[in-house]
Amino acid sequence: MSDRPTKMTDAERDAALATVSGWVYDADEKAIKKTFQFADFSEAWGFMNRAALLAEKMDHHPEWFNVYNRVEVKMTTHDADGVTTLDFQMATAMDGFAA
Amino acid sequence: MSDRPTKMTDAERDAALATVSGWVYDADEKAIKKTFQFADFSEAWGFMNRAALLAEKMDHHPEWFNVYNRVEVKMTTHDADGVTTLDFQMATAMDGFAA
Repeated sequence: MSDRPTKMTDAERDAALATVSGWVYDADEKAIKKTFQFADFSEAWGFMNRAALLAEKMDHHPEWFNVYNRVEVKMTTHDADGVTTLDFQMATAMDGFAA
Repeated sequence: MSDRPTKMTDAERDAALATVSGWVYDADEKAIKKTFQFADFSEAWGFMNRAALLAEKMDHHPEWFNVYNRVEVKMTTHDADGVTTLDFQMATAMDGFAA
């Protein structure tokens, strides 16, 4: 994709964080993070598959860890050296997939 | 599943490690580990999906981390407090999926 977004300001990021649920900003990692908990692996994997399809479509991929029903997600935009609107697009979509 | 296997002896584990490719034993974590590298996310996700289906079928799930084309896998059998033949069944299958 062309016209990739640039790093958000702290104020922009804080405003965006207020629009999603359970995501926190990690200043050391310059990333937003959330741990999702599901009933079992099948539910967790369904969630991850939906997120994977969107990530591939957006060409913007998470760093994530899974064990059984738990999925720990980290989103950052390496090109921008920080968090951008792309990360919040993924965060919002993931909240929807997990709902 | 009934009749879950028990923890392998060190000798059994070493013998099994010699039958798989690139897996190492981590004594602190009582687990076998391997990092898989693929051409891109699509390939990595294809691999993970095949492994996920088998894991669910076996009721034996990995701990794994993914970022883009890289998948870091850890297999252990918590019930047995160590590595069992189940872990090597998954390791062997994953090597096949990645081939």
